Amino acid sequence: MPAVLTNPRAERVKDIRALGRRSARERSGRFVVDGPQGVREALRFAPQTVTELYAEEGSRHTELLDLARDADIPVFRCDAAVMAALVDTQHPQGIAAVCRPVDVSLDRALADLGGFVVVLANVRDPGNAGTVIRGADAAGAKAVILSAASVDLYNPKVVRSTAGSLWHLPIAVGAEIEQIVAACQAAGRRVLAADGAGTTLLPDADLSNPHAWLMGNEAWGLEQVTRDLCDDVVRVPIHGHAESLNLAMAATVCVYASAAAATRVERA
Amino acid sequence: MPAVLTNPRAERVKDIRALGRRSARERSGRFVVDGPQGVREALRFAPQTVTELYAEEGSRHTELLDLARDADIPVFRCDAAVMAALVDTQHPQGIAAVCRPVDVSLDRALADLGGFVVVLANVRDPGNAGTVIRGADAAGAKAVILSAASVDLYNPKVVRSTAGSLWHLPIAVGAEIEQIVAACQAAGRRVLAADGAGTTLLPDADLSNPHAWLMGNEAWGLEQVTRDLCDDVVRVPIHGHAESLNLAMAATVCVYASAAAATRVERA
Repeated sequence: MPAVLTNPRAERVKDIRALGRRSARERSGRFVVDGPQGVREALRFAPQTVTELYAEEGSRHTELLDLARDADIPVFRCDAAVMAALVDTQHPQGIAAVCRPVDVSLDRALADLGGFVVVLANVRDPGNAGTVIRGADAAGAKAVILSAASVDLYNPKVVRSTAGSLWHLPIAVGAEIEQIVAACQAAGRRVLAADGAGTTLLPDADLSNPHAWLMGNEAWGLEQVTRDLCDDVVRVPIHGHAESLNLAMAATVCVYASAAAATRVERA
Repeated sequence: MPAVLTNPRAERVKDIRALGRRSARERSGRFVVDGPQGVREALRFAPQTVTELYAEEGSRHTELLDLARDADIPVFRCDAAVMAALVDTQHPQGIAAVCRPVDVSLDRALADLGGFVVVLANVRDPGNAGTVIRGADAAGAKAVILSAASVDLYNPKVVRSTAGSLWHLPIAVGAEIEQIVAACQAAGRRVLAADGAGTTLLPDADLSNPHAWLMGNEAWGLEQVTRDLCDDVVRVPIHGHAESLNLAMAATVCVYASAAAATRVERA
């Protein structure tokens, strides 16, 4: 192994770049996180899942390299051409890591019985999925659950748009929506579908007890058959002339309403 | 003028495509809106500002063509190549309009004394700016004000990401931040800076009186000198391990807190 990797066509580099594709991720059980924010959170919250680190020559992220060395994670130096070949982004940020998956079982995601969790049902856009995970983390969700037909959690754009929240809370993937709803209810959670077709306005929703927010696809929302499984269908009120909020905005408003309700309960 | 425009290199087509650039928009006093949602809202809320409509042959937007004809707006048919040349988007949606600006003066944006307004200070990312305008509309803001150093309101990506809200509420552009803050205060509004450095948590902010939300740049927030001009600096609480929310999410949470406060006042 050379001191500094300089061949963007090396097998090692090609293997990692291939992890931009879901099939390669699933075959090898690894994914890539690029940029200091994601790498830092992976090293802080799940160092045992980080298999190797790549740092561009002259990269200023010495704090991250120290964290990696403390955790006995191999660090490879590379030049800018190799870094650009490794990661699936237009603006590489000088540092990237290869990680093993961090998702948990549905049971484990529902093990903490209080507060609220967020379920993404058939959410396909990676930026939306990542942003909702980030918002759920910020609002204090106990877990996030992605249904089987949703975007892959380890898609590079999902990873990036979680801004590190991927490592902050339990996230389950792979179950069908019906199974997720049933498991939430069995764990004592009311399931609230967030949907423009809801008759309950968000300020009137009962958020004082453990609940699960069910967020639908960005284009077509939630199917009637899915809404029928839920305990309530809740609509974010639209006060002006706007038709709707986008998925990430609606989800953020809902989870912050849950956070505010939790604060009110604590203070009462 | 041919019945159907088929030459993507025609002067008329090039002139409109040039409106993707700010300099051309400012020189000609026109901008382009593409897609049925934006075109519909322009025709519904400000038909007098729509100078012409372009519809791709076979486009199904007959309702919009009828609206345009009722308002005596010239409609030009074109083929797919011309439509692709007209608009600055990867996926043209078969209909586009050329419009005149709809922004209003700062005084006019502050003429309605109740509720809340949203001020964007040096917001540079077009998607963020448009999404905040959409969220402000949905939450019932009285107006939106963009500071002089912000992204151009008529940037195609801003227009698109407002999802039609560009035409729904008064929007002022061009004033300096100091001038905007002073005008808001002179109009009886408390100015609340939304910033991670705030000491007042959002649930504790006084939203019961007329106020203005001041949102800073996506990367560097609000400068200390700007925060010092404000009546309060408010922080969205972060409950989990997330470092922050992105600008559009934080803005949406803030404006929906204002909307909820207004609802509580109405119900009390």
